[in-house]
Amino acid sequence: MNAPEKTVDQAPLVLRQDAGGVVTLTLNRGERLNPLSQAMIAALHSQLDAVAADATARVVVLAAAGKGFCAGHDLKEMRAHPDEAWQRALFDQCARMMLAITRMPQPVIARVHGIATAAGCQLVSMCDLAVAADSARFAVSGVNFGLFCSTPAVGLSRNLGRKNAMEMLLTGEFIDAATAKERGLVNRVARPGDVDLEIGRLTASIASKSPVAISMGKRMFYEQLERGLADAYALASATMACNMMAADAQEGVDAFLQKRAPVWSGK
Amino acid sequence: MNAPEKTVDQAPLVLRQDAGGVVTLTLNRGERLNPLSQAMIAALHSQLDAVAADATARVVVLAAAGKGFCAGHDLKEMRAHPDEAWQRALFDQCARMMLAITRMPQPVIARVHGIATAAGCQLVSMCDLAVAADSARFAVSGVNFGLFCSTPAVGLSRNLGRKNAMEMLLTGEFIDAATAKERGLVNRVARPGDVDLEIGRLTASIASKSPVAISMGKRMFYEQLERGLADAYALASATMACNMMAADAQEGVDAFLQKRAPVWSGK
Amino acid sequence: MNAPEKTVDQAPLVLRQDAGGVVTLTLNRGERLNPLSQAMIAALHSQLDAVAADATARVVVLAAAGKGFCAGHDLKEMRAHPDEAWQRALFDQCARMMLAITRMPQPVIARVHGIATAAGCQLVSMCDLAVAADSARFAVSGVNFGLFCSTPAVGLSRNLGRKNAMEMLLTGEFIDAATAKERGLVNRVARPGDVDLEIGRLTASIASKSPVAISMGKRMFYEQLERGLADAYALASATMACNMMAADAQEGVDAFLQKRAPVWSGK
Repeated sequence: MNAPEKTVDQAPLVLRQDAGGVVTLTLNRGERLNPLSQAMIAALHSQLDAVAADATARVVVLAAAGKGFCAGHDLKEMRAHPDEAWQRALFDQCARMMLAITRMPQPVIARVHGIATAAGCQLVSMCDLAVAADSARFAVSGVNFGLFCSTPAVGLSRNLGRKNAMEMLLTGEFIDAATAKERGLVNRVARPGDVDLEIGRLTASIASKSPVAISMGKRMFYEQLERGLADAYALASATMACNMMAADAQEGVDAFLQKRAPVWSGK
Repeated sequence: MNAPEKTVDQAPLVLRQDAGGVVTLTLNRGERLNPLSQAMIAALHSQLDAVAADATARVVVLAAAGKGFCAGHDLKEMRAHPDEAWQRALFDQCARMMLAITRMPQPVIARVHGIATAAGCQLVSMCDLAVAADSARFAVSGVNFGLFCSTPAVGLSRNLGRKNAMEMLLTGEFIDAATAKERGLVNRVARPGDVDLEIGRLTASIASKSPVAISMGKRMFYEQLERGLADAYALASATMACNMMAADAQEGVDAFLQKRAPVWSGK
Repeated sequence: MNAPEKTVDQAPLVLRQDAGGVVTLTLNRGERLNPLSQAMIAALHSQLDAVAADATARVVVLAAAGKGFCAGHDLKEMRAHPDEAWQRALFDQCARMMLAITRMPQPVIARVHGIATAAGCQLVSMCDLAVAADSARFAVSGVNFGLFCSTPAVGLSRNLGRKNAMEMLLTGEFIDAATAKERGLVNRVARPGDVDLEIGRLTASIASKSPVAISMGKRMFYEQLERGLADAYALASATMACNMMAADAQEGVDAFLQKRAPVWSGK
């Protein structure tokens, strides 16, 4: 990091741009396909934590510089540490960052272009939503170099059916964006020039909602997924009742019944 | 209910029609898009319980009067009770009714036309099967008025992939019937004039089966979904062995081996 | 089995053929659509156990002789034992064989032609991958003879969405190969003459990978599916770290960084 001749390494690992409640976080090592090095994971996690605590932030777009989204872990860095404890710490650090995406109050939308491979594909799978350029391609390719994509499998197998997930994990082969949409890994596919338009539609829709409703709902969504049906309902019913007591829900329902636009207080 | 000037309110909230083992329950507040008020939930739950205990009932069609299936909870009623305990009781009451659909011995088929929104969409998701008119539309729109569709999310996220479910919940946007079929929310889509034909095919097929096999299997189906693989098999194997001892299975296997039609005793 | 006049019964129940790490196991009672009798289940389980312990075996193709894949349990044999304990033992024996497929270190690919019904359809659902002839058809037809396909439901409901699974279970109706692919029951569909070509692509891809990575990954895949997100990550991170310490991963990453083909030691 202190190599003055390599200017590019001095640029922030993750860029943040704010516009009207929409926070765009950009992985900023595009020349290397944005590897999830320890430093990159830490930088992204730190940015996610800052957004989570920022009441002005309503929705996050996770984008990437350069010609692709993310090619996964930094293999050079990993290979330099032939030490199981170091490796375990890396994957634990990365998993905590991935979990932070599902636990933060704002929805996170992956903006995918080029390739999303291994932990890069995992990153897409862990976002709440994903929009891909029609030229984007997805693979969990670790198996090609002797390292089964076990951590990516966690997110992938919760997005795709198990036989489709297993095929990608065993073969390491790419699927295209249309297939990714069909199988549930991404929500929308657009021509490269229209990706931001499609992202804009989603962010505008989400930013127009009550932040109280969105944050309560997102938390409940992932928690109830891990429960049986009756327990899931117990959690969801408690959340609905709590949500209904929020000023925003009372304003929203009044506005709906009075056929006017609601004005959110965020409470 | 005791307002003599409003004739329409005196009509039963839920109609029941029986024909050849097929029970059609019709939500009967079509002029208001069949809101799931406390009274409507109670009426529907009561009808479901009556069907569950009725040995002549073989399959249920859950239909709706008026121009749409169901627009969810009764917002006016909810807004009149700004009391968290009341709200919690409402959602618990509704969840119990939804769970009763999965727990009753007969399969329940949602017959969807027009819109199915919020708890109306949840109702579709909780039925065993669903047939929709090609003009039907589905949304979990509570987020539009500050109330994230947490209870609908329970059913929706067990029908659709999680990114597709999350998109509907965060945006409140409609999907059409073809998309609902593609994503797993409904089984079949037909032109409005053919919906009953399609429903009739399913009900005729189900009514021709042994009620013992159907009820044992339906109960096992939802229970095993909540278990790990080995535990699911333990339950399923016990169910198969028990089912095989039923007179209907012995008759059915004999009939199959003798290439004749079985005659069910329902035992 | 000791009927000298019936030559066909003396042929092995399951054939094994090895070629370049690819083991083809063929159900060999084609004239009867390969029923899963006690003897057939035992023979298949025994072959799977032998392959599991065989370091030269890299991937398994589960194929079938005759005009169809498998028509499920042996109804004549079942009907001859009207004894719940015997039935329970049969289904437990079969479930253990099915679980052995998911627990063995090598991936198992179902090669499906003709029909795969009841426990035959279950067998497809429990394989890691499946390739079907475009003329293949799938059903869980037990309900037609009074015996709900409870054990097949375990695998089926873990491959398909629940409404699609429920429809097959309640109606007993066939779906064609294209529908099976669309819903996640099979990975690839090919013209009958191209099925082996498609299988060959998958087996060649899998056989070219490190066996250490494949076996660690496959075990982790099914275990993590039964856990909540955080627990799944704990398991996956430990597996990744362990996998990274394997000689094959270090060779694989070096080869990748040096842009050469890896040479696996299988360690």
